[in-house]
Amino acid sequence: MISSEFTRNLCSRNAKSKIFMLVIDGLGGLPKHATGKSELETAHLPNLDELAARSSCGLISPLGIGFTPGSGPAHLALFGYDPWKNQIGRGALSALGLGLNFAKGDVAARLNFCTLDNNGNVVDRRAGRLSTEVAVELCRELDKISIPGVEISVQAEMEYRAAVVFRGEGLSDGVGDSDPQITGVPPKKLEANDSNSLLMADIAGQFLAQAREILAEQDTANMILMRGFGRYPELDSFQDVYGLKSLGIAGYPMYRGVAGAVGMDTVKVDSDLGSELSLYEKHRLDYDFVYFHFKKTDSAGEDGNFERKVELLEEIDSSIPRMLDQRPDVFIVTGDHSTPAIMRSHSWHSVPTIVASEWALPGATKEFSERACQYGTIGTIPATSVLALALAHAGRLSKFGA
Amino acid sequence: MISSEFTRNLCSRNAKSKIFMLVIDGLGGLPKHATGKSELETAHLPNLDELAARSSCGLISPLGIGFTPGSGPAHLALFGYDPWKNQIGRGALSALGLGLNFAKGDVAARLNFCTLDNNGNVVDRRAGRLSTEVAVELCRELDKISIPGVEISVQAEMEYRAAVVFRGEGLSDGVGDSDPQITGVPPKKLEANDSNSLLMADIAGQFLAQAREILAEQDTANMILMRGFGRYPELDSFQDVYGLKSLGIAGYPMYRGVAGAVGMDTVKVDSDLGSELSLYEKHRLDYDFVYFHFKKTDSAGEDGNFERKVELLEEIDSSIPRMLDQRPDVFIVTGDHSTPAIMRSHSWHSVPTIVASEWALPGATKEFSERACQYGTIGTIPATSVLALALAHAGRLSKFGA
Repeated sequence: MISSEFTRNLCSRNAKSKIFMLVIDGLGGLPKHATGKSELETAHLPNLDELAARSSCGLISPLGIGFTPGSGPAHLALFGYDPWKNQIGRGALSALGLGLNFAKGDVAARLNFCTLDNNGNVVDRRAGRLSTEVAVELCRELDKISIPGVEISVQAEMEYRAAVVFRGEGLSDGVGDSDPQITGVPPKKLEANDSNSLLMADIAGQFLAQAREILAEQDTANMILMRGFGRYPELDSFQDVYGLKSLGIAGYPMYRGVAGAVGMDTVKVDSDLGSELSLYEKHRLDYDFVYFHFKKTDSAGEDGNFERKVELLEEIDSSIPRMLDQRPDVFIVTGDHSTPAIMRSHSWHSVPTIVASEWALPGATKEFSERACQYGTIGTIPATSVLALALAHAGRLSKFGA
Repeated sequence: MISSEFTRNLCSRNAKSKIFMLVIDGLGGLPKHATGKSELETAHLPNLDELAARSSCGLISPLGIGFTPGSGPAHLALFGYDPWKNQIGRGALSALGLGLNFAKGDVAARLNFCTLDNNGNVVDRRAGRLSTEVAVELCRELDKISIPGVEISVQAEMEYRAAVVFRGEGLSDGVGDSDPQITGVPPKKLEANDSNSLLMADIAGQFLAQAREILAEQDTANMILMRGFGRYPELDSFQDVYGLKSLGIAGYPMYRGVAGAVGMDTVKVDSDLGSELSLYEKHRLDYDFVYFHFKKTDSAGEDGNFERKVELLEEIDSSIPRMLDQRPDVFIVTGDHSTPAIMRSHSWHSVPTIVASEWALPGATKEFSERACQYGTIGTIPATSVLALALAHAGRLSKFGA
């Protein structure tokens, strides 16, 4: 946003228009060597192609040229917040997404159940992809950990993932991870990055010591790794800045977390498209803005599974008519970042984007892909400008100056 | 501009080259549903097409992606001034354009003659589109209003529009409008937005009370509405920053106002193309830079009159040879903002732009339109960069660094 103050003053508070933003996680890809075509170019996408051909299209850069974002910054940019200035620790995103009791002054961290060998070295950073059911059981035990002067809440997320929230006086989030990121070495010692965070590092260390005792008898999940310490984020809300009553629809807790961090309502929902679509259909009249997240494309990209990512894109394509049936005034299709299957990771490549609206200007883009969107009338823009475009097309951004 | 200090140091003070900037108000448009073609794409523009094909072309964004400008900020951007940081109240633009005695410390406001019913509610915000002649008469009466310690000048603009300048100690422009923007309600009470402006709000209130008495017997124009309070703007001048002796040619006072605000000379002229062209031909040797404003395209766009806007574009096109006959070294064709007839309002869409010069780089643009200019060699740039391009092509911006 130009500055939140300008944006705030220009945004309509009583417009009736509806904005729908479909975020396909890890949308952008790269050509497979054998075919010279990216995932989007390989997939059969009749609905997205048709939508692109009659819309303003372009490419968005999540963080600026060359920089690869994590999910948190990538989403903040899409929501119009400077991702470099507004950082949210991954732990805070998890805690928000899980609906943990998490408030100003608290610090959260992500927990991964892991497996240590007899020498205390990490042999599996995901404890054999522990089932969510077992993780729920174990978190119930960890939730009982007691440290004087500190309130502790632990909750399972998905599979081997969990989150913890610490509440107490003088907590700060400048604490490094215990996750060594590799196997064959012991967990890293928790270290404070600044003097304000010495207390937090000490408390988290006590927490880990008690967790080790509780989990000692487990076969695989005999320890936890901590990472992404983050305090409760204090961002201006969507309602406050943009005048948008907003709903975040995401099957994965972390994405509900980032939606919650900017003040969107969120509802727990399964991560399949059908459940998310039903939720949209049920609530769309109650909200000005709906953020709709689809996760699996990113996972397929990270797994290096090109064909699976193609299939998932086709699955989304087949859902587009059902989304359009809800007749949002502005319909945006974009991604938080690229996750090319041939790279098996997030990347810095710009992300193809469609802005469909009565006031769109169709250009030379005739299909939905990285290379076709380059010729759209939007050009290549920062991801932080997408929300201003959405507001403009929705008639929600008034004229600046006489 | 990059920073006025850098620009100032790099601009030649003794170059002889001439820059001509044609600003077609509300130039950009959008496709009409029936044809899929915009106003520019519909119009027959042999001269502009030929010029575009042999020039550097591009699109300019007045305020940044998604933001829709008023005329003041849009022109400041074209003139190289940051429109977010340099705001000029509409009243100040009017006062400057009308040539009112207006100087540092003064505060101006726009006046609209309006009609109140017996209950004091506004029934017509434009007093039946009052004629300029009657407005001149009534302004002569309002000009006599006397408030101790304050000098007051009132002057008619066009039709129901007028402007007032207040001169006195301790005046500030943080005063809200009395124009309620809708009918069926009384004028709003003038309110100071900050404690510095309490005095101005009080004086303006006295002014309105006396105006009410003076106008009480009128049939239609029985009151005035005030808006756009603005102090005398203090911007670095074109001469000072760019070393350009500059002339603003505009039939409408407000555009002479914004030209005057950046230190251009202005001459009162009728708003038809013929009169403006004659003025250019008469004075072009006396100036380094000529800003030439054509208003009616914007009005046609705001009226939703697509065909009229097409005709006006063709009228301008037929005047291009006469402009080229004057052989400016740099010939720029642009607009302050888009006013798509299908939207009936200003919009955020980027504006097609031609930079014709010996040093231009023709690209894929073969005709003058929104979509064709996208493929020009300039790309999409902020409007604030247009003047630097003009100076560069005119050989007036020297090398930075050794």
